[in-house]
Amino acid sequence: MIEKIDHIGIAVKDLEATIRFYEQILELPVTEKNEHGTTRVAFVRIGDVDFEFLENNDPESAIAKHIAKRGEGIQHVAYKVRDIAKAMEALKVKGITFIDEAPRPGARGSRIAFLHPKNTYGVLMELVER
Amino acid sequence: MIEKIDHIGIAVKDLEATIRFYEQILELPVTEKNEHGTTRVAFVRIGDVDFEFLENNDPESAIAKHIAKRGEGIQHVAYKVRDIAKAMEALKVKGITFIDEAPRPGARGSRIAFLHPKNTYGVLMELVER
Repeated sequence: MIEKIDHIGIAVKDLEATIRFYEQILELPVTEKNEHGTTRVAFVRIGDVDFEFLENNDPESAIAKHIAKRGEGIQHVAYKVRDIAKAMEALKVKGITFIDEAPRPGARGSRIAFLHPKNTYGVLMELVER
Repeated sequence: MIEKIDHIGIAVKDLEATIRFYEQILELPVTEKNEHGTTRVAFVRIGDVDFEFLENNDPESAIAKHIAKRGEGIQHVAYKVRDIAKAMEALKVKGITFIDEAPRPGARGSRIAFLHPKNTYGVLMELVER
């Protein structure tokens, strides 16, 4: 069902400072930057996994709430699946519930859905079909 | 310098319950289990990255402290490097400090060192040479 880790979402307070650290210190260049509503996003590639840095200073945003509760750091892990509808169905049969009842459009032409984090042992999980 | 993500360390309260979730729900089988002192460890492979689940109920342990402060979830990310001594030197020149002043033996014949988390934007980072 799960092919690989597609990306790891990281909540940050200061996107530019974070990018400088990854580019200048770790030598991992940014491959893409964009904005969705009030969220500013940048990607860095490590092997075949992306880090997705997320900055949103709106206190009502999921990113700001994550930082308020847990501090900066990893917010979610996204798994690449071949067929998201089929994967969701297989998980629902086993009792897993989703934040997104059906796949919705994600970044870069993908279809995504977040699992409800209640039963995933501390890791917020997303499915991605590309 | 960094070749790929070697593994992602996840602090959990109940290793057996966590393993059941990953094996039975996500269909990701455990590849290895072991114990180091009071820490119980299990590995699951996703693509070419390992999840390393860590359970330690000693309240003085780094794992228990992480859970007390941030809840269950991702505790660190380990980057695979070819030459850990050379990578540490390159990072120290750029002002990065380490919890481990020199590489120390890690699991499965590796050499490891943790970066000091003060300046890594919320992600505890480890270098691994295999």
